Amino acid sequence: MASLFLQTSTPSSSLPKAQKSLFIPSLNLTVPSHPTSKTRLKARISCGLIDPDGGKLVELFVKESQKDAKKREALPLPSIRLSNIDLQWVHVLSEGWASPLKGFMREPEFLQTLHFNSLRLGDGSVVNMSVPIVLAIDDSQKERIGRESSVALLDDQNNPIAILKDIEIYKHNKEERIARTWGTTAPGLPYVEEAITNAGNWLIGGDLEVIEPVKYHDGLDRFRLSPSELRDEFTKRNADAVFAFQLRNPVHNGHALLMIDTRRRLLEMGYKNPILLLHPLGGYTKADDVPLSWRMKQHEKVLEDGVLDPETTVVSIFPSPMHYAGPTEVQWHAKARINAGANFYIVGRDPAGMGHPLEKRDLYDADHGKKVLSMAPGLERLNILPFKVAAYDKTQRKMAFFDPSRPQDFLFISGTKMRTLAKNRENPPDGFMCPGGWQVLVDYYDSLALSENGKVRVPA
Amino acid sequence: MASLFLQTSTPSSSLPKAQKSLFIPSLNLTVPSHPTSKTRLKARISCGLIDPDGGKLVELFVKESQKDAKKREALPLPSIRLSNIDLQWVHVLSEGWASPLKGFMREPEFLQTLHFNSLRLGDGSVVNMSVPIVLAIDDSQKERIGRESSVALLDDQNNPIAILKDIEIYKHNKEERIARTWGTTAPGLPYVEEAITNAGNWLIGGDLEVIEPVKYHDGLDRFRLSPSELRDEFTKRNADAVFAFQLRNPVHNGHALLMIDTRRRLLEMGYKNPILLLHPLGGYTKADDVPLSWRMKQHEKVLEDGVLDPETTVVSIFPSPMHYAGPTEVQWHAKARINAGANFYIVGRDPAGMGHPLEKRDLYDADHGKKVLSMAPGLERLNILPFKVAAYDKTQRKMAFFDPSRPQDFLFISGTKMRTLAKNRENPPDGFMCPGGWQVLVDYYDSLALSENGKVRVPA
Repeated sequence: MASLFLQTSTPSSSLPKAQKSLFIPSLNLTVPSHPTSKTRLKARISCGLIDPDGGKLVELFVKESQKDAKKREALPLPSIRLSNIDLQWVHVLSEGWASPLKGFMREPEFLQTLHFNSLRLGDGSVVNMSVPIVLAIDDSQKERIGRESSVALLDDQNNPIAILKDIEIYKHNKEERIARTWGTTAPGLPYVEEAITNAGNWLIGGDLEVIEPVKYHDGLDRFRLSPSELRDEFTKRNADAVFAFQLRNPVHNGHALLMIDTRRRLLEMGYKNPILLLHPLGGYTKADDVPLSWRMKQHEKVLEDGVLDPETTVVSIFPSPMHYAGPTEVQWHAKARINAGANFYIVGRDPAGMGHPLEKRDLYDADHGKKVLSMAPGLERLNILPFKVAAYDKTQRKMAFFDPSRPQDFLFISGTKMRTLAKNRENPPDGFMCPGGWQVLVDYYDSLALSENGKVRVPA
Repeated sequence: MASLFLQTSTPSSSLPKAQKSLFIPSLNLTVPSHPTSKTRLKARISCGLIDPDGGKLVELFVKESQKDAKKREALPLPSIRLSNIDLQWVHVLSEGWASPLKGFMREPEFLQTLHFNSLRLGDGSVVNMSVPIVLAIDDSQKERIGRESSVALLDDQNNPIAILKDIEIYKHNKEERIARTWGTTAPGLPYVEEAITNAGNWLIGGDLEVIEPVKYHDGLDRFRLSPSELRDEFTKRNADAVFAFQLRNPVHNGHALLMIDTRRRLLEMGYKNPILLLHPLGGYTKADDVPLSWRMKQHEKVLEDGVLDPETTVVSIFPSPMHYAGPTEVQWHAKARINAGANFYIVGRDPAGMGHPLEKRDLYDADHGKKVLSMAPGLERLNILPFKVAAYDKTQRKMAFFDPSRPQDFLFISGTKMRTLAKNRENPPDGFMCPGGWQVLVDYYDSLALSENGKVRVPA
């Protein structure tokens, strides 16, 4: 995935001119060079919005004034160099998406996550937590750590970016972790192959003190709003409902229809100002997904096209890596959005699903995601909005909600079909996606073919 | 397993004379021919003892006066012939061990069990439920059922023993069920091979109306007390604490020491009359476990030997089949005992564990069982008593709690070692097990060798 990303040309350079007005129109971002809101270990409650899990949004940054001291503290400690996915998790933890987690999981949290998809807090209350957020180390790292109670976490330049305190090292039973998280141990699960199979046989948990906020320097950092920043934005906009739409694919007009319809339904329910959080996932994705930079460019075109109203839409990037763990992972996607202030969550068909790696079928039952989400412990406060099925209505020549009384009029265009069309430079039916957005997809697959073949591909 | 059981001679014929005074000394059993307490769909709350899950003990028997009508009702319904394990689950459900479940799981219960090891009830409260209690059917059975809303469940003589009402048929994703229940999909899991691998691709859930209480006619039915009967017994004995000891192995003096010590600790805590529920599992077990009838004979000898006090001990059979699903299953073992009135549960090393079917290691971390149990949703009311490690103290020539300051004095005798000794007619050290109990084990392995070889085995 990482290498694929580098091989393709990135469209990020064309983004800045449009993004301010379209993505987060009235948002005065805290720019990364003034990270005041991110530089302290703080706990906050936003009034008006849904409370974060555990009542407090847990941010794990050290104070600006302590940074140098913390760097000196980190220097003599045993160190662990983090992978890209590890860094994404540090990012996730540092901003409180996984509140009330204060760092990589120790064994009690790990076991509760695997067995119960939830954590019981000291006061007896329960929060959802469905995917393990853990850091693996190998035998030699464990030996080097010895009896130390803290370790330094390094980025790929060997800079200390965090200290992990009061550590606990415990066994990493990969088979059990995989089986309980994915409901299969079949070889070929993307996250497993990327982050687990070759990982060490130990897990190290502890409390995180983050010295340097994680940045990617890909032209998209300004879209990576933290839960705290999103809450501020929703508050500034006087949102009385926030509905989150998680996505890792290009937006077509069926998605747009759904988001617009959701807002209409919320207004009907009596909300005065429902705000949409259009929240593409920005962490690790599998090789055949469209990379983040291209997706952001595509989302930009969709917004330019006026399909979604910038006044009631916030586009931001969700920093989590993708597990493709279906009903287990969709809970994480929903829970993290509670922490960012969302009290409504739109769930589609087969969320976070994929094909079975070995068998010719979907890995998960397409309905299990929404069923599990609606029953999940710790998510009782979240309103789950099941996705209505949208398809291409040939009579109206546009995307519309499927009408079971006239199935012959509808065309279903799957993600795979969409990708195949774009790859082959074929056009989808008019009204499936705005032309600008579609062109981004075509450009992406062209750039991919170019970098793979070393020459421009001749369209068939 | 079933065939092995039949091949060996059963010692049950020698039980009756001793069992009344030793196993359930002051217990006036409701004999099966007067099943008044079992022949109605009733809900009860026992005062004084811990409340059943959901507040009511759910029994699923039809009234005696309705039996004939229900048999006539069952006659024209599509029918499902039950396997031995299916029948054991009907037994479990019918008596309320799985309260508040009213029958085989429908999909919402199945999904909550797999993902959360617990069920959320209508009032928002949560009960533990960690193993799926489901009934599998195949394509042709599903087709035969068609649009019927009820089916008849038949025993191996094709007698209708229950009606399943308001049925729901849903997909049986075996791989996902196995992975999430066992934390592995390795071939060789005993319950999986016995009950899942060759089962149908559909599950059928619904409400059970049990026409005929499940009986085994093996001379041990009188020891199969229902939760209701156990509650009556504990109440009759004025128990102010009930501590349950689940087992599926012969009792050695280390177990006995632990049970006696637990009672002592409960008395120290201020309880006046703690009663031990010595509760061997009576359903399906794997081929190399000691069969129930021999275990019961062995328990009888241990009680005869006076190691446990009959006045404060109730021996009864827990009708559940065994999953060997470690930390997942131990929750079921504990939860079922709440329904029988136990408010203390003794948990040992690696409960419900076994060796990994493919690798040379235990399938589960030996400490995970007690950790998971102590954190499990719906078991907050149950007091978990972790097993102290007992071993053979060579200086005292008896089983004693392990003293880490003098490890050289202790000998650990595993279940495997114990079985190997008995098989080879070798004696364990004096004081490991009472001689009468040990002799039962030796007799069992002799009978096994005899039936396997067709001749008496000559001791080495």
